[in-house]
Amino acid sequence: MSRIVTEQPNPVAGVFDPLWNEILEVGRHRGTGGYRRYAWSDADLTLREWFAGAAASRSMQLDTDRNGNLWAWWLPRGWIGSPRGAFVTGSHLDSVPDGGAYDGPLGVVCAFAAVDLLRARGFEPAVPIGVVAFSDEEGARFGVACIGSQLSTGALAPERALGLRDNDGITLAEALTHAGRTPEHLGPDPELISRIRIFVELHIEQGRLLDRIDRPLAVASSIWPHGRWEFVFDGEANHAGATHLADRRDPMLAFAATVRSARTVAERQNAVATFAKVLVSPNGTNAIAARIRAWLDARAADQHTLDALLADITGLARQHAAEDRITLDIHTESVTPIVEFPQPPREALQQALAHYGEIPIVPTAAGHDAGILSSHVPTGMIFVRNPTGISHSPKEFATPEDCRLGATALADVIMAQCK
Amino acid sequence: MSRIVTEQPNPVAGVFDPLWNEILEVGRHRGTGGYRRYAWSDADLTLREWFAGAAASRSMQLDTDRNGNLWAWWLPRGWIGSPRGAFVTGSHLDSVPDGGAYDGPLGVVCAFAAVDLLRARGFEPAVPIGVVAFSDEEGARFGVACIGSQLSTGALAPERALGLRDNDGITLAEALTHAGRTPEHLGPDPELISRIRIFVELHIEQGRLLDRIDRPLAVASSIWPHGRWEFVFDGEANHAGATHLADRRDPMLAFAATVRSARTVAERQNAVATFAKVLVSPNGTNAIAARIRAWLDARAADQHTLDALLADITGLARQHAAEDRITLDIHTESVTPIVEFPQPPREALQQALAHYGEIPIVPTAAGHDAGILSSHVPTGMIFVRNPTGISHSPKEFATPEDCRLGATALADVIMAQCK
Repeated sequence: MSRIVTEQPNPVAGVFDPLWNEILEVGRHRGTGGYRRYAWSDADLTLREWFAGAAASRSMQLDTDRNGNLWAWWLPRGWIGSPRGAFVTGSHLDSVPDGGAYDGPLGVVCAFAAVDLLRARGFEPAVPIGVVAFSDEEGARFGVACIGSQLSTGALAPERALGLRDNDGITLAEALTHAGRTPEHLGPDPELISRIRIFVELHIEQGRLLDRIDRPLAVASSIWPHGRWEFVFDGEANHAGATHLADRRDPMLAFAATVRSARTVAERQNAVATFAKVLVSPNGTNAIAARIRAWLDARAADQHTLDALLADITGLARQHAAEDRITLDIHTESVTPIVEFPQPPREALQQALAHYGEIPIVPTAAGHDAGILSSHVPTGMIFVRNPTGISHSPKEFATPEDCRLGATALADVIMAQCK
Repeated sequence: MSRIVTEQPNPVAGVFDPLWNEILEVGRHRGTGGYRRYAWSDADLTLREWFAGAAASRSMQLDTDRNGNLWAWWLPRGWIGSPRGAFVTGSHLDSVPDGGAYDGPLGVVCAFAAVDLLRARGFEPAVPIGVVAFSDEEGARFGVACIGSQLSTGALAPERALGLRDNDGITLAEALTHAGRTPEHLGPDPELISRIRIFVELHIEQGRLLDRIDRPLAVASSIWPHGRWEFVFDGEANHAGATHLADRRDPMLAFAATVRSARTVAERQNAVATFAKVLVSPNGTNAIAARIRAWLDARAADQHTLDALLADITGLARQHAAEDRITLDIHTESVTPIVEFPQPPREALQQALAHYGEIPIVPTAAGHDAGILSSHVPTGMIFVRNPTGISHSPKEFATPEDCRLGATALADVIMAQCK
């Protein structure tokens, strides 16, 4: 999206728009217009610096936790000691490759804007209010999503996280060291999690439902169970001209058949299954591929369907591989069970937003840090309308009006929860 | 392969083995053991330096022509002026990604070794003898194969060559400038080509025929017509979880269907068709692909079959793309017509090698600089046995005995032709 131009100054535009515009060019690719804000890259470090500056200029206490998640605290007047019983809101700042501007940053920007709005209203919180930016939510670099929130809640072991490698073979441990961090610090953080009384993540909708029913905001009911699996097809490199078809062990064929099978199976089961990341070795026009690494992203409405989906796809993939004398290894990269957001925070969100009209309750097939947090603290999500439904793309979009409404809504929720 | 260890010193081992071992580690990847000797890369520049040194230490005149091809000349005693009526032999030094040690370098090393053998025999040539290393034969970096020989013979226009881009978007013009060369110099070189009376390229066999019939050497009859085509499938990036299957425009599906169709069509037509190079954008696990670029390498015994093969594959690909609302653009990267090596040099090679026993005459589906040269000068090829048939792979192999025999055979051919 382009810079937001504030036409008719109003209080929310006055606080949301400048914050939004500050980060608009960070990590944006000039060619595609998409964002490449990968964990611990220069773009990510610049956004972290921006977050620290936003906290400082609001006199909020800044904590970087042992896993690199950033926390900005607005403590009640006279508060002594660590935050506890806190209302926390926020999202993430990293992106998928060539992602959009909203997925993640909208939740963080709205959180800071809500703080500004509340202060302009003269609001004094009775409990600590936290703004959080979780590390590496997308998993674009190291394969596993929600690394920051998974580490803090103990869902991901630090030994496993540190050994994850990016496409260049760099481990998370190396990337952290390179960024001047301390890999040894990684690990669960129960004290930090225990500070939170309720966590609310505001996020752009990743679908077109709100546009269809003409509503600007929704509250999440659940997150589909989902996972990522790496398929490694090993064949034999050979000359693409001189090798007879019968003598080949070309992994491209088994991979291609698996792509088609995944789609067929997903259709039959009313689920989704996607191969979108593929690395071919050696990737030369005239040398039959030796190895293909391809990642399956699969999601379904319930765990039983997801299990069946995966069983069918892997079964067919093994069949295709066997037919072509290809070795197939399948590694589970991550599996996230279904998240049902609990009734109390969901109702609290609906009540606090009731003055905007009907607030629909919708499920989502997209994963979020809120899903990770929800097994430990009461958690809810607010979605902001996405008129095209497109996400994970430079074309991702929400109107400035809806974005500003998101900030106001978040301020309303905080006021209702923290007075 | 590993360093050749000379067990029982003999004249050919004494000249071939040291030359072979000198370049064994240049551009070799420590992980895969394969070679990454791409045009104008550091590895390529190191090999060029090695070639210049090999010429200098043999008191051969070194010419780098306007297209970067390297020529080392052994001129008859008292020769005045430029070489003419020359016997030229050689091959190339660049590799496919993770290629083998033999494809290309064997022909260059055997050529220098043959010079040494002839000198040891006290041979004095009556006509100039040239050793050549053509630039960028594999086309691994800029997509088009045989760039050096194609430019010199006028088969490739310099404007087109200079604009070719590698995977990082760097043009050949930029790569040449970076390597300290002058892109403006590129172009046809009829004077250079007119120097050649006969060109012989020695090459490792890319197939297993000689092993099956238990012969160490063969002479080429023809090169199959072949070409490379870039298929660009354009869809729409979107969230891999939240986007319904029916709302997707996922180019991975049409690409996968095209891979399968290409194989089926090639089988039916007794030809070969391979997709081995694929670039996915943005290549993120949870973002449906926006664009897939995939390269088809297709070859057949005659032009009619190749045309029919390509028509069938592109027709099916367009059908698959239309079914998924994918835009498909197909660009011809290169097409090389059939090469029938002429009778006279073929017979001359057979005669000169008759004392090794039967020399079979075999066709090949692999492209070579000899194929490009053959439309301008009498050209022949000698193949050295490949016991596994594997090529374009780190596993490519020929025995030290057969390699040394190649050098001796080349010396015999030169002696017969240049006395």
